[in-house]
Amino acid sequence: MSNFKPSDEDFEHRVRSNFDQQQVMKTIGAEMTHVSPGEVHIELPYSEALTQQHGFLHAGIVTVIVDSACGYAAYTLMPTASEVLTVEYKVNFLSPAKGERFLGIGKVIKPGRTLTVCSGKVFAYESGSEKLVATIMATMMAVMK
Amino acid sequence: MSNFKPSDEDFEHRVRSNFDQQQVMKTIGAEMTHVSPGEVHIELPYSEALTQQHGFLHAGIVTVIVDSACGYAAYTLMPTASEVLTVEYKVNFLSPAKGERFLGIGKVIKPGRTLTVCSGKVFAYESGSEKLVATIMATMMAVMK
Amino acid sequence: MSNFKPSDEDFEHRVRSNFDQQQVMKTIGAEMTHVSPGEVHIELPYSEALTQQHGFLHAGIVTVIVDSACGYAAYTLMPTASEVLTVEYKVNFLSPAKGERFLGIGKVIKPGRTLTVCSGKVFAYESGSEKLVATIMATMMAVMK
Amino acid sequence: MSNFKPSDEDFEHRVRSNFDQQQVMKTIGAEMTHVSPGEVHIELPYSEALTQQHGFLHAGIVTVIVDSACGYAAYTLMPTASEVLTVEYKVNFLSPAKGERFLGIGKVIKPGRTLTVCSGKVFAYESGSEKLVATIMATMMAVMK
Repeated sequence: MSNFKPSDEDFEHRVRSNFDQQQVMKTIGAEMTHVSPGEVHIELPYSEALTQQHGFLHAGIVTVIVDSACGYAAYTLMPTASEVLTVEYKVNFLSPAKGERFLGIGKVIKPGRTLTVCSGKVFAYESGSEKLVATIMATMMAVMK
Repeated sequence: MSNFKPSDEDFEHRVRSNFDQQQVMKTIGAEMTHVSPGEVHIELPYSEALTQQHGFLHAGIVTVIVDSACGYAAYTLMPTASEVLTVEYKVNFLSPAKGERFLGIGKVIKPGRTLTVCSGKVFAYESGSEKLVATIMATMMAVMK
Repeated sequence: MSNFKPSDEDFEHRVRSNFDQQQVMKTIGAEMTHVSPGEVHIELPYSEALTQQHGFLHAGIVTVIVDSACGYAAYTLMPTASEVLTVEYKVNFLSPAKGERFLGIGKVIKPGRTLTVCSGKVFAYESGSEKLVATIMATMMAVMK
Repeated sequence: MSNFKPSDEDFEHRVRSNFDQQQVMKTIGAEMTHVSPGEVHIELPYSEALTQQHGFLHAGIVTVIVDSACGYAAYTLMPTASEVLTVEYKVNFLSPAKGERFLGIGKVIKPGRTLTVCSGKVFAYESGSEKLVATIMATMMAVMK
């Protein structure tokens, strides 16, 4: 329910095409399930191929989906002829990433011409219950093509 | 050339066995190439399967190897009957992860009974030249089994 | 409107006495204006003595109030015989800290026996308007006395 | 012993004049004790007026000096007609800031036209011994006047 106004009306198509070019998303099985101005969701089903030593999703993979959700949330508000880069992020891990399915939500806190600050969360779903697994704060940069 | 003294003489075996249980490392093709008290290196060859939209290594995968290098660096100094968890990390991305091979180096800055603070770097290698790609600061936690 | 239940019924007194022992708060003129389970507010009037080169509040002083708001938010939920320590924090600065008055709000995201993760915001007030100046993510630690 | 080459030959004068305009530095008693290309030191004597509840230097004040050391380290390499802003930082606190004197050291890791990434450390000195108190990673931004 944000009130961000993208300068590019066709932002959803631009964001989704960019996501489709990320080979790593296909490799891990991630899907972009929501795109709105300043907010993007990325989902990932559990896969043994992505686990750490206890069979839970590796913290780095948790980061992959929420970093991307934040980057694309920022990208919804960037101009048509831009690229988006991750400048930096900080992630706190709150609970083991144990579940059948994971949802990364990225939201713009403060858009800017050059830098956009985002925050995000990752939830794990297991037997119908939801758990907050990680929280992120990230800085994204618009680079003109 | 640190002067950390691990309490567990067999730390290298413990660290390497733990790493071998991380399915995600096999999936991406990462190898642990150095283990010493308070320092661990993890290497990753380039693979198209792990790329973002420009064909470079995805920032999240850069994070996977350096988070693990830091976690295992901390783990070298933890007691035999412990597990290591990532509490949080912060990564700055300095250059696109463009190269044939990537090296994540994790080092302990300050070991502690509960929390260990680490710093790390990721280098990209291409045609014989080395480039600093990312830098991390991470907090790791020892949990007794 | 959190649903945290402090183990110490007298948490507000404990938190306020601790705050009153911080000389730096008197020095800068900060006041604790709200204490509830998992949430604390700290206010600071503008003072030229605390400015950077443009006459705005120095980023570090912005951090002082929101770090403290987060630390005390965590402390509301810690046991009677504990101390609270800042393990680490990450702050993004969104706008210059320009205003007559500043409000730091700290909230617990995830309480824990040892570590508590908090997030916080700083708002600047000027001629009746409010502006988000900074956002923080922090890890706090309970140490038993 | 960096090999950064400032574009502005008169960088030291520019950096020191800027520092002299920060009222907060006079208020806390901080001094700029070293300026070289990509590296700045700021020192602070202990003062009861800046303490937390145990009589040690408040974490926020530790941050003030090392944030400034990093910001000015970045500023040594920025163009004459620029201003420097802190985009974000992350600080880990390693030991209580207990001492007679504190030294914040800021160094440029990666300079850039818009963004410069720095790292820094704070040391406490007491009875002739040195202790690492905090470590920082920060992003600074050049804004043209």
